[in-house]
Amino acid sequence: MSSHLLSVDSLSRDRVDHLLRVAARMEPIAQRRKVTRVLEGAVLGNLFFEASTRTRVSFHAAFCRLGGSVCDTTGFTFSSMAKGESLYDTSRVMSGYCDAIVMRHPEQGSVAEFAAATNVPVINGGDGPGEHPSQALLDLYTIDKEFTRLGKSLAGAHVLMTGDLKYGRTVHSLIKLLSLYAPMRITLVAPPGLEMPSQLIDLVVSRGHRVEQRESLADDYADVDVVYTTRIQKERFTAEMSEGFSLSRDFTVDRAFLDRRCGRDTLVMHPLPRDSRPEANDLDVDLNGDPRLAIFRQTDNGIPVRMAIFATLLQVEELIEQDLRPVRWFVPRRLGVDDATS
Amino acid sequence: MSSHLLSVDSLSRDRVDHLLRVAARMEPIAQRRKVTRVLEGAVLGNLFFEASTRTRVSFHAAFCRLGGSVCDTTGFTFSSMAKGESLYDTSRVMSGYCDAIVMRHPEQGSVAEFAAATNVPVINGGDGPGEHPSQALLDLYTIDKEFTRLGKSLAGAHVLMTGDLKYGRTVHSLIKLLSLYAPMRITLVAPPGLEMPSQLIDLVVSRGHRVEQRESLADDYADVDVVYTTRIQKERFTAEMSEGFSLSRDFTVDRAFLDRRCGRDTLVMHPLPRDSRPEANDLDVDLNGDPRLAIFRQTDNGIPVRMAIFATLLQVEELIEQDLRPVRWFVPRRLGVDDATS
Amino acid sequence: MSSHLLSVDSLSRDRVDHLLRVAARMEPIAQRRKVTRVLEGAVLGNLFFEASTRTRVSFHAAFCRLGGSVCDTTGFTFSSMAKGESLYDTSRVMSGYCDAIVMRHPEQGSVAEFAAATNVPVINGGDGPGEHPSQALLDLYTIDKEFTRLGKSLAGAHVLMTGDLKYGRTVHSLIKLLSLYAPMRITLVAPPGLEMPSQLIDLVVSRGHRVEQRESLADDYADVDVVYTTRIQKERFTAEMSEGFSLSRDFTVDRAFLDRRCGRDTLVMHPLPRDSRPEANDLDVDLNGDPRLAIFRQTDNGIPVRMAIFATLLQVEELIEQDLRPVRWFVPRRLGVDDATS
Repeated sequence: MSSHLLSVDSLSRDRVDHLLRVAARMEPIAQRRKVTRVLEGAVLGNLFFEASTRTRVSFHAAFCRLGGSVCDTTGFTFSSMAKGESLYDTSRVMSGYCDAIVMRHPEQGSVAEFAAATNVPVINGGDGPGEHPSQALLDLYTIDKEFTRLGKSLAGAHVLMTGDLKYGRTVHSLIKLLSLYAPMRITLVAPPGLEMPSQLIDLVVSRGHRVEQRESLADDYADVDVVYTTRIQKERFTAEMSEGFSLSRDFTVDRAFLDRRCGRDTLVMHPLPRDSRPEANDLDVDLNGDPRLAIFRQTDNGIPVRMAIFATLLQVEELIEQDLRPVRWFVPRRLGVDDATS
Repeated sequence: MSSHLLSVDSLSRDRVDHLLRVAARMEPIAQRRKVTRVLEGAVLGNLFFEASTRTRVSFHAAFCRLGGSVCDTTGFTFSSMAKGESLYDTSRVMSGYCDAIVMRHPEQGSVAEFAAATNVPVINGGDGPGEHPSQALLDLYTIDKEFTRLGKSLAGAHVLMTGDLKYGRTVHSLIKLLSLYAPMRITLVAPPGLEMPSQLIDLVVSRGHRVEQRESLADDYADVDVVYTTRIQKERFTAEMSEGFSLSRDFTVDRAFLDRRCGRDTLVMHPLPRDSRPEANDLDVDLNGDPRLAIFRQTDNGIPVRMAIFATLLQVEELIEQDLRPVRWFVPRRLGVDDATS
Repeated sequence: MSSHLLSVDSLSRDRVDHLLRVAARMEPIAQRRKVTRVLEGAVLGNLFFEASTRTRVSFHAAFCRLGGSVCDTTGFTFSSMAKGESLYDTSRVMSGYCDAIVMRHPEQGSVAEFAAATNVPVINGGDGPGEHPSQALLDLYTIDKEFTRLGKSLAGAHVLMTGDLKYGRTVHSLIKLLSLYAPMRITLVAPPGLEMPSQLIDLVVSRGHRVEQRESLADDYADVDVVYTTRIQKERFTAEMSEGFSLSRDFTVDRAFLDRRCGRDTLVMHPLPRDSRPEANDLDVDLNGDPRLAIFRQTDNGIPVRMAIFATLLQVEELIEQDLRPVRWFVPRRLGVDDATS
């Protein structure tokens, strides 16, 4: 299935490394200094059966920046599916119109079922509680890029993951990708009942990493390199769990936590969206403008990483460099305080 | 009104032949071997007042493959129409923004009314029980292309149409187009109450074709070249008809029917979507992968045919060949069993 | 804030003049005689939190005609906002994907709040009862262009505004722009309770213009150059006002009014949509086809004006001329009677 991107499970270390290298070569385009038209004539079907503006726009923009055209579909269902059309028929028909398909769907496994009926590359843009591999890749790319800037290395790094580690699919996928790399230390801090599934911990440990579970952020984390925080996925809770649940302030990452318990260079990441309503106790807005807050550099990285995914699936990664032209329009550089890294 | 495509009634044999020839010239692009940018700078307004993902994406992709840009609108109504705007105003305003307009609308005649207020080419993408001319053209193109592959000819061909022949607008349009060609034999098999309207039969007979009506598929159809099946259009039924209606299994085209009653080369077509729920008794999925099942080659043909429609309306059909460039990206060839034709 | 277009208040006379000059240079493209690709590689985020098909398509088409790609979002809210995401986060994330953003939102001030969190140019596409600056610019451009055709000048012109002058944001913005120019005469005719706000009148008077308020169209307006009519903005009324309100026929601009009370060259403008239901008493359809009716030339002008806005914000206005190529496709010239001006 190497012609699709359905799950991080199917990604070898070599393929991940290749994707990250290609993503790095996309930076001049993503940073609006160069233009390429290498995908001219290609059409992306961007099929969102579940709303996700951010992910949809990110894939859309990435494909356009390679020179392709995009056809969006949003809404819970295809009109034809309402008339009894099978996923098989829908998939086969769409593959006659489009050269690549991004699909988000609320049901786990549906994207793989869709991919089975087509030969055009299919990218899983999130299938409910299942997978969202491009998010994991951009998270890894962000860690790698930030570490390079800070003179750090993945080998021996200390990553802390906190929040909803049970339902947060992004931490599941990220921990799998990280486990492909040199041994590191991973600390998991979750409220009772929202801990990381044990089979995932077993997998990571079996690959030589050191995993520690804690119940609170009220410890010393001076040597932590990355704090990866997640939103509570209440929409995935059972009714029983949801009843009366509220995340305690003890699990909130904010400026005080970073200043008192972490190091000078500790990075803060989050898959976004973050819930900025005070009662949510999600990642605090008091870190906005702090260079340790990497969350917007993280979303920015979605463009080069998704460009790399398209470029490898459509086999143009070797053509990009010879096709680059200088950009002629001008966008003010994003120099807002939230982005400052030097 | 030759600057629009509103109805098959307005199509002369010459114009149909021209469209099919231009569509054939689009194959290298539709098959992703060549790229053209001949419509660079042109904007298509793809206005879908009624949901139809497949048709919308097909027109969208066809326009993009010619180098143009597409602006989609979906949803039952224009926001401005809700404020009392007339179809006349909407149409005239949109023609100032776009260079061509595809419109689908649930009300018969509305697309023609829309076209009357504008001078940019308007293509009827389906107006309720009315017309859907691009579907009829791609059906004819498919028959012609498959016949060429099989060494057959339209002259003297035997076409069987079955299913809902009363409300299925695609069979109405297709039979009109077929009637422009050399005399052939047409057999109509419909459940009681869903027969082809008699004025259509009269028209076809008056043009020299032989039409036969039967009440069942339980006959010998060894010399049938094409079995064109349709979905029951329950959404067009009156409440009274809908009450308790279910299509008997006797009208289902499946592998057993093809093997026992038809020839080795008999093609099966369907305008799609097909209703794959077992109780629907629509075209059976047991033919998936059988080379006689032409339904996906049929939808694939929507791209070159719709490209030909745009190319002729915007008068670029003579420029395509000199503008072709090799494609640089790569999509695995669609070689799935369902497509196998050799 | 000169890197955004949020309000006409921030526009100097120099910037307005520059925009109008650039818009005039866009005419060969808007009229489909020339093509440019100067924005190749650029991505517009076209974010419509409130439905407005016409405005959305106009911005979309304008960006495409400059060679850029567009990603549309429609619907009341971002999916991520429903999960508690702040406008700050949404804005900053989108600015990593897009190079310019057009935003329409039902809440006054929201677009400015959005713009504060991003460094990519943001264009206000309408924020509820607030601003819609591109509409005011295309209105001014229309007056200027029509006057040039008629051998008239803005200096000393007589402009009549009628309809809902209290809630109609387009007349508020237009009167501010007009007030930047040489002294003119402005007559305001509104039903009781829907008069132009007095602070706006004071502003215009303080800039040397002569403003007169009347209660009826039943006067002599022989020397009026432009009649600018507006739809009653019932959706902005309080429940109390809406109760039983209906615009009297006395405020309807129709052929009889133009023939009896105005001059031969008096132009009729309207921001559209107009409510063509008879009981609405909006601008009458009996003027359709009359060359004095400028409303469709006015919407056509939305394309060159919005192209000029994008071109100046992304700093390519000096590159357009050297990048022009002849168009290769052909659209019948819009010569309908409604457009006839000579």
